Amino acid sequence: MTQQKEGERLMNKLVSLCKRRGFIFQGSEIYGGLANTWDYGPLGAELKQNVKKIWWKRVVQERDDVVGLDSAILMHPRTWEASGHVAGFNDALIDCKNCKARFRADHLIEDTLNMHVEGKGIDELTRIIKDNQVKCPTCGVSNWTDARVFNLMFKTFQGPVEDSSSVVYLRPETAQGIFVNFKNVMDSMRMKLPFGIGQIGKAFRNEITPGNFIFRTREFEQMELEYFVKPGEDMEWFNYWRQFTIEFFTGLGVKKENLRLRDHSPEELSHYSKATTDLEYNFPFGWGELWGVANRTNFDLSRHIEYSGKSLTYFDPETKEHIIPYVIEPSLGVDRAMLVFLCDAYREEEVNGEQRVVMGFAPEIAPVKAAVLPLSKKEELEAIAREIYNTLKKHYTVEYDVSGSIGKRYRRQDEIGTPYCITVDFDSIDDKKVTVRDRDTMEQDRIPINDVPDFLREKMGF
Amino acid sequence: MTQQKEGERLMNKLVSLCKRRGFIFQGSEIYGGLANTWDYGPLGAELKQNVKKIWWKRVVQERDDVVGLDSAILMHPRTWEASGHVAGFNDALIDCKNCKARFRADHLIEDTLNMHVEGKGIDELTRIIKDNQVKCPTCGVSNWTDARVFNLMFKTFQGPVEDSSSVVYLRPETAQGIFVNFKNVMDSMRMKLPFGIGQIGKAFRNEITPGNFIFRTREFEQMELEYFVKPGEDMEWFNYWRQFTIEFFTGLGVKKENLRLRDHSPEELSHYSKATTDLEYNFPFGWGELWGVANRTNFDLSRHIEYSGKSLTYFDPETKEHIIPYVIEPSLGVDRAMLVFLCDAYREEEVNGEQRVVMGFAPEIAPVKAAVLPLSKKEELEAIAREIYNTLKKHYTVEYDVSGSIGKRYRRQDEIGTPYCITVDFDSIDDKKVTVRDRDTMEQDRIPINDVPDFLREKMGF
Repeated sequence: MTQQKEGERLMNKLVSLCKRRGFIFQGSEIYGGLANTWDYGPLGAELKQNVKKIWWKRVVQERDDVVGLDSAILMHPRTWEASGHVAGFNDALIDCKNCKARFRADHLIEDTLNMHVEGKGIDELTRIIKDNQVKCPTCGVSNWTDARVFNLMFKTFQGPVEDSSSVVYLRPETAQGIFVNFKNVMDSMRMKLPFGIGQIGKAFRNEITPGNFIFRTREFEQMELEYFVKPGEDMEWFNYWRQFTIEFFTGLGVKKENLRLRDHSPEELSHYSKATTDLEYNFPFGWGELWGVANRTNFDLSRHIEYSGKSLTYFDPETKEHIIPYVIEPSLGVDRAMLVFLCDAYREEEVNGEQRVVMGFAPEIAPVKAAVLPLSKKEELEAIAREIYNTLKKHYTVEYDVSGSIGKRYRRQDEIGTPYCITVDFDSIDDKKVTVRDRDTMEQDRIPINDVPDFLREKMGF
Repeated sequence: MTQQKEGERLMNKLVSLCKRRGFIFQGSEIYGGLANTWDYGPLGAELKQNVKKIWWKRVVQERDDVVGLDSAILMHPRTWEASGHVAGFNDALIDCKNCKARFRADHLIEDTLNMHVEGKGIDELTRIIKDNQVKCPTCGVSNWTDARVFNLMFKTFQGPVEDSSSVVYLRPETAQGIFVNFKNVMDSMRMKLPFGIGQIGKAFRNEITPGNFIFRTREFEQMELEYFVKPGEDMEWFNYWRQFTIEFFTGLGVKKENLRLRDHSPEELSHYSKATTDLEYNFPFGWGELWGVANRTNFDLSRHIEYSGKSLTYFDPETKEHIIPYVIEPSLGVDRAMLVFLCDAYREEEVNGEQRVVMGFAPEIAPVKAAVLPLSKKEELEAIAREIYNTLKKHYTVEYDVSGSIGKRYRRQDEIGTPYCITVDFDSIDDKKVTVRDRDTMEQDRIPINDVPDFLREKMGF
């Protein structure tokens, strides 16, 4: 219970810092907000771009065997029949007849009866709720409708007529955009197995109970890789990508003790999956899924072959056979990855009897790479500082700040996670040097102004 | 007419190259396509990222006075009442009673009667069509319904209940996400007028007649800047950004003669606009809007103040007054910008009696920066080539190609617009040099292997 309270305290502080410092605002806030949408402010937008850039670099650009894709959010509705989303991407909902409140039947049972009901059918969920006379959490009465199926895809109409023939869905995952383009990508890029197609883009799920800040939102962004392999080599590659996930995050400074791999039990596996592992993170509100790695076998390609009548096979030049590749899918949420970097970076320290809050982002992740701070508004100092600033901002996102005491400015940069503060003081006029302060050690080095770009390049690694 | 045919021939070639080389595929192609959606293949995804990166660098990162934002696609529906989209973002549609075909009334009149009807009301459009006994382009009969209003916003339902209280829209522009966050951004980033907020993101318009490849699509991506200024300084900044648009494109190698600025006439101006200029490009199908620059006055902020009851004003520290800033909006489509770069880069040349197709992208725009080509599959050559490739791909998107004749490989790289081909031949083993071929001049330089990274860095400018 204390741990839960500590977690809530931390989340509250983080949400507040994110708003105050321009990382994350409530979506449509001036209109009272739109349930569980979030807008990324100036620093959040930079942070998000950095997260996407690094994923793309590691998973696509630096690899011989992976190419990128950017497919549309709106796809032909047959896609979602083939993928199984039209028939199976459902929640069971149940209504209180007394107060009209609506709940997810499985959550209602888990919360009130402390039972696990994964995989149970809709009739059984209804029976459990009624047999146990579960009370409505809102009004306390036990008077329920039967549970009904609710599809989680957002539906809209394309074209000038609103009828069933014009229904399209907002994609609930980016993965299917990769599968339907499998042949076009393979042919145009002359790919040989094993190879992957990576994609970053928005997806939408009409969740009944989103929550925990940006952990679960109805609109979110995914970074998905579909890695195609020969059948028989699938578990080897599954293990490779399983390990990749943990190294990706520890390599960007996330604490190892906050990460764990959790293999799905046989009952928990999706119908298409031979093996699934979740990389989980120890969020302030508990362990939560961060990066799912699934061995989807040849399920998706087979279904698209069946539904489209097209030949989505791979010709193996060695065996002279046409095969349907297996696929390993490491699927990571951009927003969730951001939340990990935010939670993991947050720390409070005491310095000389005063508290400081530090966002200890890895340099690649930090939204602002350096701040240039003239000690005073004197013209000579500002001239030097401006020149340094102008040089650096051609390559990095940097800030210029001349307002308030230097201590206050350091604290502000600590709070937004700027790795280096470059201070121009009166000595700089004569010795052509500046003071570079390290965010974490708070140590200050005096270096020649001309060395600043190289210093930063070396520290940033780019 | 010959010009039109030449334009069609060019577009067909471009569309075909885009598919063959992995730039752009028809969306959901295996299901027969979803009307006018397009998926960006591996090279298209890189090209798109480059376009977005450069816009962000020039408009946000390099400037003191602009910060970024990344707001949600789904916004509170009151946003679109305030912005005027619920009431006014409409097309007038008219149905043929005989064959049930549906048309935009204004397009029908423009195409059949060659009349301009901008700004005319729905009753007048009906009257013109009926009075002139316009024939249905599909069946030839003149038997029309009255024209009716059709809102261009995509509508969906958020949450578990599908009723009017849960209607949300897919944003038809990213701009309103900036306006509703005006106060949060200004406060958290301590911005002083004039300042801008830039944003890149998807928007959706349920156009009746999209077309011309990726020129007009229902799902598209925008790069919008809202630049807030003091009233009275608005026309000065309007002119600044008007000029900025043309320099942006010419600076990235787009031919000046294919660009022109077209000022809107008073009748053409939107109700909120004091002045609007379109940067237009001479597409193969004719001049088309590329980048709209509008002086939106204080229309949007005033409306959001009215609808939200919140104080979205700026306190001017000099005059001690609270003012509603004016705003200049340069609004550019990512997809449209890509089409400009594709069209402008395409050229056919004769070299030694053979034709070559070249995509003459500026290096910053080119999806692949360099190709490493070992002359043969001999292990010694591949070892050297691999090492060069591995070094370069830490920083750039590069290709490695060992298949087919060297001439054929050059042609392929020309077709995807790779600025430099680096060829490893048998001399490279001894002299530790490689041949660098320039895409445009086809001149070949022999340079030391160790100099390759610096050579490329200098040519790329980053």
